[in-house]
Amino acid sequence: MCSLVQIRCGEVAAINKERILLAHGNGGKLSHDLVAAVMVPAFANEALNELHDGAKVTVQGTKLAFTTDSYVVKPLFFAGGDIGKLAVCGTVNDLAMTGAIPLYLSAGFIIEEGFLLSDLRCIVESMRLAAEEAGVAIVAGDTKVVEKGAVDGIYINTAGIGAIIEGSAISPLSVRPEQDIILSGCIGDHAVAVMAGRHGLTLPQAISSDCAPLNGLVKELLTAVPQIAVLRDPTRGGVATTLNEIALQAKVGIMLDEAAIPVRPAVTAVCDLLGYDPLYLANEGKMLIFADGAYSAEILSILQAHKYGKEAAVIGRVQSVPVGQVGLRTGIGGVRLLDRLVGDQLPRIC
Amino acid sequence: MCSLVQIRCGEVAAINKERILLAHGNGGKLSHDLVAAVMVPAFANEALNELHDGAKVTVQGTKLAFTTDSYVVKPLFFAGGDIGKLAVCGTVNDLAMTGAIPLYLSAGFIIEEGFLLSDLRCIVESMRLAAEEAGVAIVAGDTKVVEKGAVDGIYINTAGIGAIIEGSAISPLSVRPEQDIILSGCIGDHAVAVMAGRHGLTLPQAISSDCAPLNGLVKELLTAVPQIAVLRDPTRGGVATTLNEIALQAKVGIMLDEAAIPVRPAVTAVCDLLGYDPLYLANEGKMLIFADGAYSAEILSILQAHKYGKEAAVIGRVQSVPVGQVGLRTGIGGVRLLDRLVGDQLPRIC
Repeated sequence: MCSLVQIRCGEVAAINKERILLAHGNGGKLSHDLVAAVMVPAFANEALNELHDGAKVTVQGTKLAFTTDSYVVKPLFFAGGDIGKLAVCGTVNDLAMTGAIPLYLSAGFIIEEGFLLSDLRCIVESMRLAAEEAGVAIVAGDTKVVEKGAVDGIYINTAGIGAIIEGSAISPLSVRPEQDIILSGCIGDHAVAVMAGRHGLTLPQAISSDCAPLNGLVKELLTAVPQIAVLRDPTRGGVATTLNEIALQAKVGIMLDEAAIPVRPAVTAVCDLLGYDPLYLANEGKMLIFADGAYSAEILSILQAHKYGKEAAVIGRVQSVPVGQVGLRTGIGGVRLLDRLVGDQLPRIC
Repeated sequence: MCSLVQIRCGEVAAINKERILLAHGNGGKLSHDLVAAVMVPAFANEALNELHDGAKVTVQGTKLAFTTDSYVVKPLFFAGGDIGKLAVCGTVNDLAMTGAIPLYLSAGFIIEEGFLLSDLRCIVESMRLAAEEAGVAIVAGDTKVVEKGAVDGIYINTAGIGAIIEGSAISPLSVRPEQDIILSGCIGDHAVAVMAGRHGLTLPQAISSDCAPLNGLVKELLTAVPQIAVLRDPTRGGVATTLNEIALQAKVGIMLDEAAIPVRPAVTAVCDLLGYDPLYLANEGKMLIFADGAYSAEILSILQAHKYGKEAAVIGRVQSVPVGQVGLRTGIGGVRLLDRLVGDQLPRIC
C-alpha cells in the first residue's frame, strides 16, 4: 500500500465495513451509486463525468470515442453467442452509441488454470468473426492465467477506440420534450437465452441471444438522420434502467406505451413463469433512439430494412415532467412508475 | 455458441484436450507460444503482429499508441504499491515504451461479492494518485461483480491511449549490432516485495516494489535522444525474457555483463535462498534502452539525474550473432545462455 494512502485508508477502514454486493455490478441503482461515490470523485474529469457508454476525448485535434467493458457471462457458451462474441459486440456497440465508427479493440484475457485450450480457440474464433463483421481490428492483447479457483473459467475485457462521426451530436443534453423514443427490436432475448443455458432449461420455443454488432446500422442511421439526439443500448438493467439514466441526465420525464414494446411471446412466457420483467432484462443487440417525431418514419424505415432492426417500433415519448422519471402506460390504462433496477434479477448476464 | 463456430469447435475439441497452464500467463515461452498459436492467427493485423508493448494505430491521420493489461496481483496490497497503482503504472509504462505520451486510460473492475468497500476505496485512491503523477486521465470505466469464489478479490484491467512522440522510431527493427543496452536501475524489487507480502515473509532489509510511472523519464530521454532504438519494461519474465523477445524480433544476439547488472544485495540474498534468478523476476518501474554507444553517456546522465533512474547502468551490448540468443558473461569468465522463462517462478506477480 502506498504510504500516502495508508493513513487515509486506515481511517476509512475503521469507519467503513461495507461490502460489495452482487447488485453493485448489475448496471442498476447500486452500480450507479458505487460509481458516483467511489470512482467519479477519484477520477473526476469531463469525459468520465458524462457517464455515457463511451468517453469522448481529443488527441491532437482528432475526436475519439474510448470505452471499456469486462465480460463475465455464465455460461461461456449460450444460444446465439458466447463470451467472445459478446466481448467484441458489446464494446463495438458502446462505441457506436456515442456516435462513433469503431476502429480498434484491445482484448485482455484472464484464464483459469486448466481451462480447455479448445474452448479458448472457440472463443477466439467467435471474436474473430464478430470483429470481421463489425469491421474492427483487435490490435492489442494481454493474457493472464490464475490458479484453479481464482477465476470462473475465463473473463475477457475489451476496450475500444472509435472515430466520432462528424456532424452528429449524440448526448443526453440533446434530448427535448416531445421527442420520440424508438426501440430497434424485441427485448429480453439475450437474458433469457443466457438464463436457459445456465440452468439447462429447454424452452418450448428456442430463444437465441440477440448479441450483434450494431455499428453498421448506427452509421446508416446517423448518415441519414444526424439530428438523432441519443443512442443507447439497453444492456445490464434493461430498457427501464437505461431510460431512467437518460431521464436523469437529460432532466426530462419519459412515458412508455406498454402495448408498443416488442417482446417475443416465448420471452413473456418465461418472464411470467419466473417473475422477471422484460423491461429489466439485458439485451446485447438492441438500441434505444431519441429523435424528433419528424424523423421517426425515416428512422423506422432504415431500422426495419436492416437485419438487426426488423421489429423496431416507437415505444414512447419524452415529456417535460416529471423530471428524471420513467412511466409505463399499461394495457389496462394505468401508469406504472419504472425505477432503475435495484436488486439483481440475473447476475453475470454479460 | 455461434453456429459457424460450432462445427469447427466440435472438430477441435475432439482432437485437442490440451489445457491452459499457469505458465501460459507468465510472459515467458508458453505465453509467447499461446499468443502465437491462438491469438495472432485469429486477429492477424499489422499492429498486433508487431507484438510490442503497445499497438501503433492511426485515426484520421493522428498516430496513437493503444495497449491493455489485466492485473491479478496477489496480495492486493504490498510494500511499495497495490493493484491500483500497478494497474495505472503498468499501462502508462507500456504506452511510454512505444515512444508515446500516455493520455487516457480506461479501467475495468471485476470484483468479488463481499469485497470490502474500504479496500476498493484504497485501490481507487492509489489509481488516482498514480494517474495524477503520470498526468493521465481515467476517462472510461466498467464495474462487474461476480459471486463469492468466482474471482480472487479484485482484478483490474486498464487500457490506454497515447500520442506517438514525433521523430522517435522505437522499434525492434531499429536495433543494430554494437548498440549498448542500458538498464534504468536495480532488478527484482517488485517480485521480491510481492512474494514477501504473499507469504508474510519479514526480510532483513525491507524491499519495496519499484512500481512507478516512467513516462516522464521516457519523454525526457526521447526529447534529448530521439535516436533511441528500443525501450522496453522488463515486467513478467524479467530482463532475460524481455531481451530474448527483442533478440528474436530484431534478429540479433545479445551479450550481457553479469557484474554490470544492478541488483540490491537483499534481493540477491532472497534469490540465493529460494532459488530464484533476479534476471527472470518482474519489475514494474524499470526499463531497458537500446541505443548507439555514442548516446550512452547522455542517456545515463538523464537517467541518473531522475528519481527513477539513479542506479542506471550499461549492462550489455548487441551482437550480430548468435541470432535470437542472449548470453551472460559471468563473474568467473564463462558465458551462460539465458533462455526465455519456461516454467513459472512466481505467478500473479502483476
